[in-house]
Amino acid sequence: MNAIDTKLAALGITLPAPAAPVANYVPYVITGNLLVISGQLCFGLDGKLSDAHKGKLGAEIFNEAGLEAARLCAINVLAQAKAALGGDLGKIKRCVRLGGFINATPHFSALPAIMNGASDLMVEVLGDAGRHARSTVGVANLPADAAVEVEAMFEIA
Amino acid sequence: MNAIDTKLAALGITLPAPAAPVANYVPYVITGNLLVISGQLCFGLDGKLSDAHKGKLGAEIFNEAGLEAARLCAINVLAQAKAALGGDLGKIKRCVRLGGFINATPHFSALPAIMNGASDLMVEVLGDAGRHARSTVGVANLPADAAVEVEAMFEIA
Amino acid sequence: MNAIDTKLAALGITLPAPAAPVANYVPYVITGNLLVISGQLCFGLDGKLSDAHKGKLGAEIFNEAGLEAARLCAINVLAQAKAALGGDLGKIKRCVRLGGFINATPHFSALPAIMNGASDLMVEVLGDAGRHARSTVGVANLPADAAVEVEAMFEIA
Repeated sequence: MNAIDTKLAALGITLPAPAAPVANYVPYVITGNLLVISGQLCFGLDGKLSDAHKGKLGAEIFNEAGLEAARLCAINVLAQAKAALGGDLGKIKRCVRLGGFINATPHFSALPAIMNGASDLMVEVLGDAGRHARSTVGVANLPADAAVEVEAMFEIA
Repeated sequence: MNAIDTKLAALGITLPAPAAPVANYVPYVITGNLLVISGQLCFGLDGKLSDAHKGKLGAEIFNEAGLEAARLCAINVLAQAKAALGGDLGKIKRCVRLGGFINATPHFSALPAIMNGASDLMVEVLGDAGRHARSTVGVANLPADAAVEVEAMFEIA
Repeated sequence: MNAIDTKLAALGITLPAPAAPVANYVPYVITGNLLVISGQLCFGLDGKLSDAHKGKLGAEIFNEAGLEAARLCAINVLAQAKAALGGDLGKIKRCVRLGGFINATPHFSALPAIMNGASDLMVEVLGDAGRHARSTVGVANLPADAAVEVEAMFEIA
C-alpha cells in the first residue's frame, strides 16, 4: 500500500471498477510523462448513474447532490488513473489539470462550488500533488444527462 | 503513400484543403512531440458549412446528420494534421485526445453517439494509433451555428 | 524590462494582481516545459468583475463588451503566467493553446468575433510567439455569470 492507497482507505473510498468507455474511444492515453484521462461521468461506486446525480444544476438537482456528483467524477478519474498505472497510484507526480463540465441551466452560476467536490477529493487523496489547474463551465447537456463530467491530465513518474 | 494515405484512399476520403482560421489564431501548434489542433468545425470536403450540418442536435438536426457532422470534423482535424506535418501523416504516433463539443438543446443527451462519428473515423484511418481519450459535452452554441466542433492533440514522431 | 514588458507598457497595460482561485485549486501548474493556466474570468484591472462584463452574449451584453471581456481574460492569463514564471514573461516560448468559453444564448453564434478579444491581445503582446491554437464554444453559463472564460497552455523555456 502506498500513501495514496492508505489515504483512500482512511477516507473509506474503494475505487470502483473503471468505467468502460460508452463509445469507440479509450479511457486514458499516456504520452511521455503525461496521462490524459477521458471525461468521466458521475457514476456511483456501483458503476451506475444514480437518478440523484442526473439532470441540471438549478433545475432537477441542487448543490449538495451536485457536489457529490463532482466528487464521484473525481473518484472515477482516480479509478482510471489506477488502471492506467498498472495499479500503482504512487506513480502520480502531480494532478496537472481538471476540466469540469457542469450540466446547468442558463441561470445557474454557482459552478465553482459544485466543481469543488472534485477538487477537494483530489487534494484529500493526493495531498499537495493533487493541487491542479482547473477550468469550470456550465454546459447545455452531458452524456446520459449526467450532472457533472470531469476530464483530467496528470504528470506521472 | 504511407499506410494512412492508403487507408484514406480506400475509404474514398480526399482530405480537404485545411480550413483557414476564422479569426486571429493558427490552426495548429507543435510543442515538443505534441501537435495541438484548433477546434475544427464540420465543414464539408468543399470547405463549406452545409445547412445539413448546422443547428442544434435535438432541434434542427438529428442523429444521422450529427454523426456525419462529427465525422467531417475529424476529417478536418486530419487535414490540419497533414498540413502541420509537412504532408506526412505517417509522423503521427498516436491520437492522444479528442474534445467534442456538440451544439445541442438542453434536452439532448445522446451526445456520445454523435461524437462517435469523429472517434470512429479516427480509428478507421489511424488504426490502433487512432484510439484516443475523449471528452464530449453539449454546448449552448458553436461558431457559425455549426452542429459539431472537435479539437485534438496528437503525439508525433 | 524584456520585450514583452516593453510591449505591455506601450499598450498601456498594467497587469493586475493575479486573481486568487475562487475555490480549492491553483491558478497554474508547470509540468516539463508546459505551463497550464486555469480558466480565467474577465475580471477588470482592479480585480473586480464589472457588471459590464457579466451576463450572456446575445441577451444582457453585446459585441463590444464581449470583446473587451475576452481581452480582460487574456490579460488575466498573462498575469498568472507572470506569477508562474517568477515575474519573467520572457520565459514564454509560445502560447500553445487558448480555450475560450463564451457565456451565450442558444442563438448567439458570432463566438469567434468575441474570442478575438483574447487572441488579438495575445498576439499584440507576444508577437509571433502569441499565435496559438484555439477552441471557442458557447456555454450555458460561467462562474459568477462572467461573460467569458479563457484557459491557456504555454510552452516555456
